[in-house]
Amino acid sequence: MSILEDKDPQLTPISTYGEFGLIKHLTENFSFSNPSTEIAVGDDAAVIDANNQKVVVTTDMLAEGVHFNLGYVPLKHLGYKAVVVNVSDLAAMNATPTQILVSMAVSSRFPVEALEEIYAGIALACERYKVDLIGGDTTSSTSGLIMSITAIGLENSENLIKRSGAKVNDLLVVTGDLGGAYAGLQILEREHAVFLANPNMQPEMEGYDYILERQLKPEARTDIKKILTELDIKPTSMIDVSDGLSSEILHLSDQSKVGFRLYEEKIPMDSLTISTAEELNLNPVMCALNGGEDYELLFTIAPDDFDKIRNHPDFSVIGHAVDLDQGNYLVARGSNELIALNAQGWDAFLKRKES
Amino acid sequence: MSILEDKDPQLTPISTYGEFGLIKHLTENFSFSNPSTEIAVGDDAAVIDANNQKVVVTTDMLAEGVHFNLGYVPLKHLGYKAVVVNVSDLAAMNATPTQILVSMAVSSRFPVEALEEIYAGIALACERYKVDLIGGDTTSSTSGLIMSITAIGLENSENLIKRSGAKVNDLLVVTGDLGGAYAGLQILEREHAVFLANPNMQPEMEGYDYILERQLKPEARTDIKKILTELDIKPTSMIDVSDGLSSEILHLSDQSKVGFRLYEEKIPMDSLTISTAEELNLNPVMCALNGGEDYELLFTIAPDDFDKIRNHPDFSVIGHAVDLDQGNYLVARGSNELIALNAQGWDAFLKRKES
Repeated sequence: MSILEDKDPQLTPISTYGEFGLIKHLTENFSFSNPSTEIAVGDDAAVIDANNQKVVVTTDMLAEGVHFNLGYVPLKHLGYKAVVVNVSDLAAMNATPTQILVSMAVSSRFPVEALEEIYAGIALACERYKVDLIGGDTTSSTSGLIMSITAIGLENSENLIKRSGAKVNDLLVVTGDLGGAYAGLQILEREHAVFLANPNMQPEMEGYDYILERQLKPEARTDIKKILTELDIKPTSMIDVSDGLSSEILHLSDQSKVGFRLYEEKIPMDSLTISTAEELNLNPVMCALNGGEDYELLFTIAPDDFDKIRNHPDFSVIGHAVDLDQGNYLVARGSNELIALNAQGWDAFLKRKES
Repeated sequence: MSILEDKDPQLTPISTYGEFGLIKHLTENFSFSNPSTEIAVGDDAAVIDANNQKVVVTTDMLAEGVHFNLGYVPLKHLGYKAVVVNVSDLAAMNATPTQILVSMAVSSRFPVEALEEIYAGIALACERYKVDLIGGDTTSSTSGLIMSITAIGLENSENLIKRSGAKVNDLLVVTGDLGGAYAGLQILEREHAVFLANPNMQPEMEGYDYILERQLKPEARTDIKKILTELDIKPTSMIDVSDGLSSEILHLSDQSKVGFRLYEEKIPMDSLTISTAEELNLNPVMCALNGGEDYELLFTIAPDDFDKIRNHPDFSVIGHAVDLDQGNYLVARGSNELIALNAQGWDAFLKRKES
């Protein structure tokens, strides 16, 4: 049973703490691992010592009922994932994540213990990615839970990688495998629907471990920076796969002014993703193209770098850049038919639950 | 009539744009005024060139029904104020505001035109304070409007002023006048209640201009930095008055490890604030102590600096620091009675509307 359904009178209403007390209570046990963190929570603003480096900043807002469903997402995982999503954006710039600010609006349905669970997940992610929590805000809301995260990274200018540097003939490369997070979400939604229909039914989650973890506890590929340095490769453009491969390719196309050919047979997918998609009557490739939330890195490299990367287990070469006027197409397996790539992505405004 | 009540079919549902399109649409006409802004909206993260300065970051979350009521707060003012609140936190560190990120969660009750109004106010504040909009996120929510703002400033280390530097015998100084924003809020709430009871009644706002502007269109005291430099004064500690004078004094006390004596007769208040408070049967001093949202700066200076500041129209010396074990007290007018200062502040969790 989750904290939110628990009617235990031992749970602490948020109003016990008040505005200042609550953020202090939730953040007081966080430690710091970056020398650039000079002032954290507790003054009017946090201070970062940039030491002649570029300061890279990203922000994201996550809303209950839109980005997550607390019916099947544990609070601790939610906190962890909220950090990962932002750290992933910094990794996509090739920047080193250093600090994070977390704000939350919560209804009185949430006891303090629920927020503590979320912060436990945030703390775990801060430790894993060596980022320091330096600020935030908590407020009440008239309904639901909304989280807003801002993440900061530092980097030498020459290391930063934008979305805009891809050239014609560059190779399109992706890390890891795709579509798993979306397949995992489908299993969670199916079992949640079963549970709502009959609370005595046991959810059937066994055997889906890998894709459930891809959905509930994704990791940002901060490891890729080091690997690319060791291989002596500097990508010409880079983005993270948060909204689906198709949407990300269109972003690189738009900002680099090139088109792309993506080869269906080259898209890396785990066998569990494929079998689950088929079990659910979904096209596995569509899970990779439009599913999103894989948080892998998608980048382009000069054709000369192909030999450095071709047999590396972390990377798949999935396509190449063409002239912008040749457009963005998926080259179908077998037939070589060209299918236009669309930015269906993961659209919060089309997905919303409110009528 | 406001955009939100307008049933005009010409208004554009947010879903028309989708997630990427909306933030692009809302931010594409923003210009930049800081050389430190290197990459803004459009890549995975924004990039700031810190040029060997400290990077100062603050964040704030504003929720409909908690921090503002769209029944009487125009959307454009809301956008303006959201920026001001954060710029004020940077001014309280004596840092120069340079960039801002704005995220919003909105229900489908809001058409695109409503968000455009909010962004028009944000744009006005960006222009006024010379800050660049460099990022943000928009998402749907199951109810209401939530805004999350992160503001960034740059500053040389030697100029930064923390909350923690006040020493015993330092003088306590405040800019401008206090309590006006709270008095203005009371008038807005009174007239809104009248309107709800009888929509044909005309609101009686005439003659309240100054305090209504203090509430609806406050300004951050970014001008104070220059004035203090010209007077050759460096405050020993500083904070902005967002939650009420009483609460801010307790923050300085807590972080500087000193107590304070605040003289009731010295608290600067506009005559309209005093007369409005009396009309509403409120104690004017309580409006200053616990009202908040004045966004003036409260700071301490060494006793030797008194002559530099004593007759300056922007400043009022309102008290002094004592040993921590002497506590924090208001010295009552006439009687010299000591009244303990409490952090009643403006507590979002006690004020919430939800049952």
